[in-house]
Amino acid sequence: MAPIAPKEPYKLLNTQASINAKKIRFELNQIELPIGISETFGMIIHPGAALAVPITNDEKVIILRQYRFAVSRRILEFPAGTLEDGESPLESMKRELAEEAGYQANRWDHLGQMLPCPGYSDEVIHLYLARDLIKLEEKPKGDDDEDLEVLSMTIEEFENCLASRNELLDGKSITAWYQARRLLKA
Amino acid sequence: MAPIAPKEPYKLLNTQASINAKKIRFELNQIELPIGISETFGMIIHPGAALAVPITNDEKVIILRQYRFAVSRRILEFPAGTLEDGESPLESMKRELAEEAGYQANRWDHLGQMLPCPGYSDEVIHLYLARDLIKLEEKPKGDDDEDLEVLSMTIEEFENCLASRNELLDGKSITAWYQARRLLKA
Repeated sequence: MAPIAPKEPYKLLNTQASINAKKIRFELNQIELPIGISETFGMIIHPGAALAVPITNDEKVIILRQYRFAVSRRILEFPAGTLEDGESPLESMKRELAEEAGYQANRWDHLGQMLPCPGYSDEVIHLYLARDLIKLEEKPKGDDDEDLEVLSMTIEEFENCLASRNELLDGKSITAWYQARRLLKA
Repeated sequence: MAPIAPKEPYKLLNTQASINAKKIRFELNQIELPIGISETFGMIIHPGAALAVPITNDEKVIILRQYRFAVSRRILEFPAGTLEDGESPLESMKRELAEEAGYQANRWDHLGQMLPCPGYSDEVIHLYLARDLIKLEEKPKGDDDEDLEVLSMTIEEFENCLASRNELLDGKSITAWYQARRLLKA
């Protein structure tokens, strides 16, 4: 296969409205698509994010049960976070792994990049597998609004949980897990 | 495992700004989280969507190479679409499978529900596996702004393509594929 296809930019004709919300921005833009059609679309401008699948030396999956206001539920998600200004995806991920899960990892593998919602967001999430974990004695302070619990499961328990239909599956977490499994089996 | 955890609504204090954009709406809301903290967050209100993994009788994966303005690229995605008013997820999916890929399916399995970006969108995507496919002689007319190509690959070609790191992975498609594989192997 060829490397990742190059960008094919659309032509921005005008921005009709916009709202800034913390790290993201929503814009209503009139654009001209590569096929020549002009239309008005809404989209999120996002700084990007990073996610890690943390696996302990005794093969436990570390995952969060986290409250997400947008869906009004507690869902299963791997530790992840939005990139801060000037931060590389891996630096960001090391910070989030400590703040959210309370771990430091000494072995990092890159699992590629994923798009959570290419229909209306430019967000790209950098995926990692984090191994050789060390549990921190104290979690560094993260965001005040985080409402989460750190869980540990065997790989089998985790896969049964995904198969059960009792979870609303988080796209970024399942995509990362799909990629991680290949390295874990190798 | 228990069934899908019930919703835990946040308290909406006030909507500070909003923008309507076709089928989606962006709101900047001051809310009170279940942990008692009040904050202002941006979020997408979305009607929901459906996606299908179409597999032909000779075990080919049908997938689209589709232009997505939000990421300015052509990405690999399974046929999917936003629910229209009054349409069930399965009805919507049958329409999209015909319009986007040019197929009708006689065997449908539900693969659960996924959340593409629970951090800032309430969108839920209903996932299906579509089998016993019949190629339509003519594709019904879909959206004017669609810019896509229909591809057919063996399962091995598709998995190699995902492993290659030459694709920006679409979260909803990989999540559906992860769930579909279990049924395809059974």
